[in-house]
Amino acid sequence: MAPGKKGILERLNAGEIVIGDGGFVFALEKRGYVKAGPWTPEAAVTHPEAVRQLHREFLRAGSNVMQTFTFYASDDKLENRGNNLRLTGQQVNEAACDLAREVANEGDALVAGGVSQTPSYLSCKSESEVKAIFKKQMDVFMKKNVDFLIAEYFEHVEEAEWAVQVLKTSGKPVAASLCIGPEGDLNGVSPGDCAVKLVKAGAQIVGINCHFDPMTCVKTVKLMKEGVEHAGLKAHYMVQPLAYHTPDCSCQGFIDLPEFPFALEPRILTRWDMHKYAREAYKVGIRYIGGCCGFEPYHIRAVSEELAPERGFLPAASEKHGMWGSALEMHTKPWVRARSRRDYWENILPASGRPTCPSFSTPENWGVTKGHADLIQHKEATSAEEIRQLMEKQKKAKTSVK
Amino acid sequence: MAPGKKGILERLNAGEIVIGDGGFVFALEKRGYVKAGPWTPEAAVTHPEAVRQLHREFLRAGSNVMQTFTFYASDDKLENRGNNLRLTGQQVNEAACDLAREVANEGDALVAGGVSQTPSYLSCKSESEVKAIFKKQMDVFMKKNVDFLIAEYFEHVEEAEWAVQVLKTSGKPVAASLCIGPEGDLNGVSPGDCAVKLVKAGAQIVGINCHFDPMTCVKTVKLMKEGVEHAGLKAHYMVQPLAYHTPDCSCQGFIDLPEFPFALEPRILTRWDMHKYAREAYKVGIRYIGGCCGFEPYHIRAVSEELAPERGFLPAASEKHGMWGSALEMHTKPWVRARSRRDYWENILPASGRPTCPSFSTPENWGVTKGHADLIQHKEATSAEEIRQLMEKQKKAKTSVK
Amino acid sequence: MAPGKKGILERLNAGEIVIGDGGFVFALEKRGYVKAGPWTPEAAVTHPEAVRQLHREFLRAGSNVMQTFTFYASDDKLENRGNNLRLTGQQVNEAACDLAREVANEGDALVAGGVSQTPSYLSCKSESEVKAIFKKQMDVFMKKNVDFLIAEYFEHVEEAEWAVQVLKTSGKPVAASLCIGPEGDLNGVSPGDCAVKLVKAGAQIVGINCHFDPMTCVKTVKLMKEGVEHAGLKAHYMVQPLAYHTPDCSCQGFIDLPEFPFALEPRILTRWDMHKYAREAYKVGIRYIGGCCGFEPYHIRAVSEELAPERGFLPAASEKHGMWGSALEMHTKPWVRARSRRDYWENILPASGRPTCPSFSTPENWGVTKGHADLIQHKEATSAEEIRQLMEKQKKAKTSVK
Amino acid sequence: MAPGKKGILERLNAGEIVIGDGGFVFALEKRGYVKAGPWTPEAAVTHPEAVRQLHREFLRAGSNVMQTFTFYASDDKLENRGNNLRLTGQQVNEAACDLAREVANEGDALVAGGVSQTPSYLSCKSESEVKAIFKKQMDVFMKKNVDFLIAEYFEHVEEAEWAVQVLKTSGKPVAASLCIGPEGDLNGVSPGDCAVKLVKAGAQIVGINCHFDPMTCVKTVKLMKEGVEHAGLKAHYMVQPLAYHTPDCSCQGFIDLPEFPFALEPRILTRWDMHKYAREAYKVGIRYIGGCCGFEPYHIRAVSEELAPERGFLPAASEKHGMWGSALEMHTKPWVRARSRRDYWENILPASGRPTCPSFSTPENWGVTKGHADLIQHKEATSAEEIRQLMEKQKKAKTSVK
Repeated sequence: MAPGKKGILERLNAGEIVIGDGGFVFALEKRGYVKAGPWTPEAAVTHPEAVRQLHREFLRAGSNVMQTFTFYASDDKLENRGNNLRLTGQQVNEAACDLAREVANEGDALVAGGVSQTPSYLSCKSESEVKAIFKKQMDVFMKKNVDFLIAEYFEHVEEAEWAVQVLKTSGKPVAASLCIGPEGDLNGVSPGDCAVKLVKAGAQIVGINCHFDPMTCVKTVKLMKEGVEHAGLKAHYMVQPLAYHTPDCSCQGFIDLPEFPFALEPRILTRWDMHKYAREAYKVGIRYIGGCCGFEPYHIRAVSEELAPERGFLPAASEKHGMWGSALEMHTKPWVRARSRRDYWENILPASGRPTCPSFSTPENWGVTKGHADLIQHKEATSAEEIRQLMEKQKKAKTSVK
Repeated sequence: MAPGKKGILERLNAGEIVIGDGGFVFALEKRGYVKAGPWTPEAAVTHPEAVRQLHREFLRAGSNVMQTFTFYASDDKLENRGNNLRLTGQQVNEAACDLAREVANEGDALVAGGVSQTPSYLSCKSESEVKAIFKKQMDVFMKKNVDFLIAEYFEHVEEAEWAVQVLKTSGKPVAASLCIGPEGDLNGVSPGDCAVKLVKAGAQIVGINCHFDPMTCVKTVKLMKEGVEHAGLKAHYMVQPLAYHTPDCSCQGFIDLPEFPFALEPRILTRWDMHKYAREAYKVGIRYIGGCCGFEPYHIRAVSEELAPERGFLPAASEKHGMWGSALEMHTKPWVRARSRRDYWENILPASGRPTCPSFSTPENWGVTKGHADLIQHKEATSAEEIRQLMEKQKKAKTSVK
Repeated sequence: MAPGKKGILERLNAGEIVIGDGGFVFALEKRGYVKAGPWTPEAAVTHPEAVRQLHREFLRAGSNVMQTFTFYASDDKLENRGNNLRLTGQQVNEAACDLAREVANEGDALVAGGVSQTPSYLSCKSESEVKAIFKKQMDVFMKKNVDFLIAEYFEHVEEAEWAVQVLKTSGKPVAASLCIGPEGDLNGVSPGDCAVKLVKAGAQIVGINCHFDPMTCVKTVKLMKEGVEHAGLKAHYMVQPLAYHTPDCSCQGFIDLPEFPFALEPRILTRWDMHKYAREAYKVGIRYIGGCCGFEPYHIRAVSEELAPERGFLPAASEKHGMWGSALEMHTKPWVRARSRRDYWENILPASGRPTCPSFSTPENWGVTKGHADLIQHKEATSAEEIRQLMEKQKKAKTSVK
Repeated sequence: MAPGKKGILERLNAGEIVIGDGGFVFALEKRGYVKAGPWTPEAAVTHPEAVRQLHREFLRAGSNVMQTFTFYASDDKLENRGNNLRLTGQQVNEAACDLAREVANEGDALVAGGVSQTPSYLSCKSESEVKAIFKKQMDVFMKKNVDFLIAEYFEHVEEAEWAVQVLKTSGKPVAASLCIGPEGDLNGVSPGDCAVKLVKAGAQIVGINCHFDPMTCVKTVKLMKEGVEHAGLKAHYMVQPLAYHTPDCSCQGFIDLPEFPFALEPRILTRWDMHKYAREAYKVGIRYIGGCCGFEPYHIRAVSEELAPERGFLPAASEKHGMWGSALEMHTKPWVRARSRRDYWENILPASGRPTCPSFSTPENWGVTKGHADLIQHKEATSAEEIRQLMEKQKKAKTSVK
């Protein structure tokens, strides 16, 4: 941490709002640096300028945390996902730490090293094997001296507990964030129970990221908070949701939507949706508020702008944005100038321009989770014959839905 | 032009496909470097790394043209739009040329200097005053030795003709692109007649950019082509549409949509929509195919991928993208792997996730254009009293719509 | 005609508004007396009480015309459509005339005998064969002394001309109504040209019924009127549209929609839509204003209520309806009482309650018409093998659509 | 009961399916005989032919129960709702009984006398006053010797218990049906607890009618059944839902939708939706299956057709309907003939044809119920000043919704 900067727990203990960053894999996929499917972060090594620029945009939008671009950067995952560059997990993790630190130093941000769920767990490897994977990533984070650690994007609370247990050995503050909804983890453990387990495992900050839209994630964190408080425990809370509307999702979240990952555009939240999200998260008592897949810099800026009265300042990027559209006063056409007011944007119900498309999809519901043969991970790409079989199963799953 | 590179006309005369770039002002607005309302490009001076990075992403996505980030960079516009940095038009234009050239040199791309419609024209200044503005920008482009010139984003063909007449004096190839739909320019001049005027004024390439969705723009360029051919003239054709669905727009395009500019998200085209667009543009005989507002690098990559058979190669960014979703073979969940096929994505009808929102909006239809008092431009921001008056007019305009 | 009643031409010549009735085959299908597919009116004989009741409801709603329930009641059609009751066309037509007259006598309504397009024409029978069919129906109408004659629901203007030529021999006033849209008849004859042909054939009233929604039909009648006036001719105009929204239809109208005929519910017009329709029809100069498929008695009442100021009276059924919802003043819940005002209902944008359904369908576009082998009519039901072949063709037609 | 007919309990005890009828007030409102707002059934006296015809259509569609058209026919309601004909409750109830009996005698149907919630209860009258009102209606039903009694459309289980206690004194079988959803009655009593109370009060048949769509009502009856079984009691179950999709409703059901009652058209269920409803209701163990507001004869026919395999016969009206659209084999156009198959109609997702309308509305949520001053009933129509005040409250209620 740069001298003079306050740590994550100092901030949260003081009641400060901490703004997280947005979604790196999705944003960099659109910019041409991440491959959807594998979703691995080799670009930290191969295209550092692109990763650095995205960090900078989030910093400028108000983020107080630069998460290392290390999602799915464990060796078991890289190996499973066609890593033809022969980059080691260590190389990727180190490069990502350096980039995060470089940009964090340009402003008031901390560096958080992140681990996430592993193919090893899904393939039913042992606790010690899975923990060894987390340990390996953590070693890099310690070498690079990140400011705190996040175990995020876990669908099974058990694996998250294992991660927290490993990360705790570092002595750094640990945050734990699941990608589950109000119905609980994939084994049906409720959000409240999940949170209690994570706090007991040693996490100081618990919450939710990814898989569901902002309001659903806030609701789930609220359930976690109630669980923790009911158990007589204490924690800080974080939320880093999708920037996609997911009212039609079932328990596995947006992965199950037919639009995932290449046709989610009509679901993207507007900046005004983000104002509502930030306010609601704050009301519920969450103080670490950021984003995940789909969050672009302007989404984070909207969060920062909504909470500017509480924080006492606007982010740097607000020099290029009038609050609630006020800069439209400068537009060429007078009827666009008439839109430069809060009540206009606060109440807009934006049209899709897609009259042949519906509002809701029917999510796939295979209802399988860790332990099921379909989920054992392998490094080979799926063959044509396997695809055919998958489509059969899929059809069956769809029809069995009520 | 770097030695050994073919010029724009050489390419088009040889029947090559030229891929344009995407929308700088909208992309950089979301990244935090452009202010919606003024829409001016001071970031070329103040944040060159952000502009450079976006150029690089488009280059990587397959763009053969780096347009200088000089939209609305005329002195009369900068002055009208709250230019509190006291940057001159010359400073902004020069910086933009340098950035475009730097990145163009990294690949097979040309630099195009661009001028666009002026507040002076809208405020009824004389032909010589308006032409002096174009001349001033052109002088910078000549000093920086761009490869060709584009007069783009004109709503009145008359102003575009004036721009072409000025740019022709440079001796560089000139492209002219209007932001109109099939109904013609704001004075009702048909696309065919507009195209003939522009060709007669000296443009070698004519077409459409902005204001409408891809299929509408392609249709309009088709009408231009028919007009030019019917007049016994010759030209090349270009199209650089919005990346937003606009089936509900009237003659002024997306500006008139209530969602403009801050709630257009549900209208964003998917990459698969872009495949259809690229194919249709190609079929119609258009060979300069790019994008405008809303086009992100992945949209341009989709255009490049669709036309890869004709061009014989994929863009660099396709190393991070499986054609038609094929990299989903590597996804963790088998039901997502089953989506790794063309017919899945080609036929998807994506849901909006917004059940309280409609498919179509009702565009505003003030029906005023150049010459109307409401459109005289001034540098002061709109006052509260003026906003009140605008809302009255707006209400009237809405109700008078059939 | 009952003594003292004014005839149809007397009324129209005097500038009176004549309110037509609604859609018998669709309403009686829902009530259980007409079979969708054959669509033939045997119920006039077998269930007179059901037919009489529907006539009465339309009379009560303000209709000035009782159309005989004789749609598709020609012998060639009855034979082609599984007439297992062995009823003759004459029996059906006579019974229908008696019912219409009985109810017409209960109020200020006229009886109109109606003929419609024949399977014989579609099967390329000769002019004299087709005319003989019209003649046979007309003979019944003359025997029963109806007040005027309507040739309606023709997709080809040629067949309508033949019908008019036959009906003219009766000496009764003749109205002719096509089921086409603004693009013209199935051979591409424009609405204006169609209207001129019909007037020249002897029709005193021309217009449009069925196949498209009210606003589209009014627009088409407007084109007919312009054609007639441009030709220096004179006529009265009628319109009897669908009560279904059809913005997504192509030239064959609602038949081509995938929802036809058993899933049109979400498209049904509200009574408030009918107010707008009636006003627009009146503005355009149409004075015979009614409805076709989907029009229920309350739709006709809405037409009557909108035009009450011009006509000087409300229909009988308005004793059970507050204008613009005013009777909601009497509702139990105060928030429903707050809806008892015109501006509430005039501006409502009703939700579908169907989030997985789109706003638009893609109509089928076989693009075949009279003369094509696929349209030769036969009495046998379609076999399973034929259905299979049809589905092949259908698939091809769908994909060939742009 | 006609000699030889089995009573309602005999049928249900024998495991037979009993098909109910559809919605009289809504159907007759559209036909011009009921006034929306008051919703009272004076037409039983003034227009018996219209009421008789609707009974016949339901009988023909398969209904085994003719409910007397006596909804809101209590004296306190008639008085409160502008009964300017000075008809007494007794006159209306007697006429309704005669009509139901007349048509029941034409087929295999029973007559059920119905009472429903009273303005007296809502206005906080005493138990004995409210019971006196039920007693008065029951006396007519006894005089006319109906076959069984239904207490239906109650929002508060307490009032329904009072009704059942009165009706039990008749010695006739008693059914009790609430208009509540899965969240319970307006005081928050759960469906399971409501059902137990009603069974304990003496009802042999319990269930749900009105206010919600079929699937929601079936779900609620399922909760009632679980409650009854859990309490170790026994009952038969009935369901008579709306024919409108209401996925966006909150606890007061469709009354709170902005579209109620004059813009519900886009929500109307298709006949195919009814097949799914009938099957689901049967699966859950419900054996008295009918409909309420919005149900037209063809909806009841669809219920009868779906359950024909279990019942062993089709209803009379199926002579005019091919199962699953099979009669389209006889349609003129071959592409419509290709729709004559079950999988086509079973999977159709019908478009609304309304691109400017949403899928969901935001229901009003005043959150007031019996005991609140706003709900004290009075006979005067609401004044303009009261409407103004209502709109204020409404606005407040809307904004307070999350």
